[in-house]
Amino acid sequence: MTILVTGYGPFDDEAMNPAWETAKCLDGRVIQNERVVAAQLPVNIHENIKILSSLIKTYHPSIIIGLGIAPGRSVVTVERFATNLLDLPTPDEGNNQPIGIPIVPEGPTAYQSTIPIKAIVKNMRKAGIPSSVSYSSGTHGCNQVLYWLLHQAVEGEMKTKIGFIHLPYLHEQVANMIFSTLSTYPPSMSLETMTKAIEIAIHTIIETKEDIEIAYGLMC
Amino acid sequence: MTILVTGYGPFDDEAMNPAWETAKCLDGRVIQNERVVAAQLPVNIHENIKILSSLIKTYHPSIIIGLGIAPGRSVVTVERFATNLLDLPTPDEGNNQPIGIPIVPEGPTAYQSTIPIKAIVKNMRKAGIPSSVSYSSGTHGCNQVLYWLLHQAVEGEMKTKIGFIHLPYLHEQVANMIFSTLSTYPPSMSLETMTKAIEIAIHTIIETKEDIEIAYGLMC
Amino acid sequence: MTILVTGYGPFDDEAMNPAWETAKCLDGRVIQNERVVAAQLPVNIHENIKILSSLIKTYHPSIIIGLGIAPGRSVVTVERFATNLLDLPTPDEGNNQPIGIPIVPEGPTAYQSTIPIKAIVKNMRKAGIPSSVSYSSGTHGCNQVLYWLLHQAVEGEMKTKIGFIHLPYLHEQVANMIFSTLSTYPPSMSLETMTKAIEIAIHTIIETKEDIEIAYGLMC
Amino acid sequence: MTILVTGYGPFDDEAMNPAWETAKCLDGRVIQNERVVAAQLPVNIHENIKILSSLIKTYHPSIIIGLGIAPGRSVVTVERFATNLLDLPTPDEGNNQPIGIPIVPEGPTAYQSTIPIKAIVKNMRKAGIPSSVSYSSGTHGCNQVLYWLLHQAVEGEMKTKIGFIHLPYLHEQVANMIFSTLSTYPPSMSLETMTKAIEIAIHTIIETKEDIEIAYGLMC
Repeated sequence: MTILVTGYGPFDDEAMNPAWETAKCLDGRVIQNERVVAAQLPVNIHENIKILSSLIKTYHPSIIIGLGIAPGRSVVTVERFATNLLDLPTPDEGNNQPIGIPIVPEGPTAYQSTIPIKAIVKNMRKAGIPSSVSYSSGTHGCNQVLYWLLHQAVEGEMKTKIGFIHLPYLHEQVANMIFSTLSTYPPSMSLETMTKAIEIAIHTIIETKEDIEIAYGLMC
Repeated sequence: MTILVTGYGPFDDEAMNPAWETAKCLDGRVIQNERVVAAQLPVNIHENIKILSSLIKTYHPSIIIGLGIAPGRSVVTVERFATNLLDLPTPDEGNNQPIGIPIVPEGPTAYQSTIPIKAIVKNMRKAGIPSSVSYSSGTHGCNQVLYWLLHQAVEGEMKTKIGFIHLPYLHEQVANMIFSTLSTYPPSMSLETMTKAIEIAIHTIIETKEDIEIAYGLMC
Repeated sequence: MTILVTGYGPFDDEAMNPAWETAKCLDGRVIQNERVVAAQLPVNIHENIKILSSLIKTYHPSIIIGLGIAPGRSVVTVERFATNLLDLPTPDEGNNQPIGIPIVPEGPTAYQSTIPIKAIVKNMRKAGIPSSVSYSSGTHGCNQVLYWLLHQAVEGEMKTKIGFIHLPYLHEQVANMIFSTLSTYPPSMSLETMTKAIEIAIHTIIETKEDIEIAYGLMC
Repeated sequence: MTILVTGYGPFDDEAMNPAWETAKCLDGRVIQNERVVAAQLPVNIHENIKILSSLIKTYHPSIIIGLGIAPGRSVVTVERFATNLLDLPTPDEGNNQPIGIPIVPEGPTAYQSTIPIKAIVKNMRKAGIPSSVSYSSGTHGCNQVLYWLLHQAVEGEMKTKIGFIHLPYLHEQVANMIFSTLSTYPPSMSLETMTKAIEIAIHTIIETKEDIEIAYGLMC
């Protein structure tokens, strides 16, 4: 059985993206008899879907976790929802800039992720890693990937468990920032902490039959 | 014709809530021949719906705008989505604390607001008021009110335009804060600015046939 | 008698600076028989001092309040200290970029402001304006102006009361921001609120014989 | 030769303080032939000085680095200044609450730290650790310790190099936070990253004859 972990590659002026760095760290690991396959996705709303399609055909993964960066967030955030919306503030690497466009015309307004988000947050926290449920995966490629995958699962009656986790900046990214206009630096985490967080997520998905209900109060 | 503006009242230790303060300021105003009626909602997930039901029966409003506070947000945020989820970090004033419960069992996962959110943000910004589209109205009473209203509109085939706008703290609230544990104060706005923002929202809703599409990049 | 209020003008790509906008609003006002004179300072560490020198010779002000912008701060901050240090992250408009240079060689490491900072904060808060004492005026032109003035006062045995107040962004500045990399907007205030804040500061300086002592816990 | 690293212990409701945790991790290490001695300081403005006095008499350290927590800061911050001011927002553990009181009556308004702050920040950043110079060590025990030590050094003509470094929250602290009123969590770091940061600081202090000058633009 295969666990697919996708991570977006670097974009804009950044030399790296915590999403791909973390996925790469997990590539090839065997967790409870399932093998992790990491795949890099380009910041391109057409190419990412082509690659995802091909990965699903090749691996028939039992679990798919998408990873992306959420600049400014201070904790690892496990997404609850994907919405049927693409809205890019700037063109992607393929020069696409959909604004207010549905990912799947006639698709439902939103899907819920099918991984046990609260159990994941609970276990990350138990291991000392700051994390939270998030109620918006945004309107860019991260949300697109999550929505598209959840839609495929429903349409194709796939049993694959599907989720998306946003990561803060990597320490190295912030260590290279020189600001002159804002009086603060964004939060960041080490690659080691992020990798441990996603490993915990995978363990939790494999072990959890039904998600727990706990009140985590924010990321509203 | 009636424009209903609801605002939550104060809760926890706060002496006021910008939502109700702003609604109150608009009460009785006539905007383009429509009369604004302001109504206070309690922070109680059963009572708020009862009051809303009754208000709809009494006024048959052409527009309903819910107002709430989003502590920590720095700009006026116009909500795009409501999700079918109630998840309270602490009990409400009626001692209810649903965790992970749908607002409408069997209802769709989410609805889109039916007010022209991007035109509203554009017009607020043109008037010099910081604002943004938001892609999560949270999981508390604010999201509940928006979801419930949008669901009623679909079920009852109501033409009412329905939206929700989150406000930052009022200046007065932050002026009374004495922190000892965090090294910063949350952003805030004056009641005057907030009232002007909601007035602009109402004008925009009345005047806009179809929402525009502009890329506003955040509140992910 | 004259109250001199200086405000830095716009710099970088900004069309305005709350410091100068606020100073301008107060220009010519008579407060308790003293007349406010507003003067714009350039973001140039040599020119600003030349202009200040000339203003002091012309007006012999009884009070001097410098105003500057502190991007990212959410409240009006009244500076307690000026340090003997110039450290610019980018060149100023005269292409000067001192790094780690004393403002006055052989001058003391720091001076305390001579306006009643805590009484000012107390009165601003009483009027509903979020404000705080600040314990660092930075290392740019704002700190330079405060240090230089306090040093002149000591050297020249001037009785002038001297202080510096940092302002958040103006609403209009944030209303024009389109971010693509950070998930939040900086806090801001209306020009009206800022003007009222500085008016309160002036009243307080005139009326206060000795500063009060109150614990305001932050801006560490 | 001895390197003294002091760290405040936990206070308020916190079970730990990154300052002491980090100091403890370094206790007993030998760095370039100098031995690190870690000492815990109580959050008590009289007891901390007594303990410091005794430590200096016992160890005659060549380097003293004080560590403290700066809740809300996102990076490791190396303090440039200590000011002659004690101002506590709440009473300390000995129930002392000085407000606006000088640490050393008749002492100078401020001292500069005598460790090479910019070389330290440069080396931390080179190692991928987000860090910054800070221009305010606050008005609590952290600033008090730094000021008191620098004053002793001047009065006693000690050659000891003296500095203070503020740390963000530990990951574990934020992992245990349940907020209901603010929509975000504070930034945090792993103990491992913090320990590495202070180790780099010690190496840099030992190896640096004269501090470098680099423009780091913030923490104003």
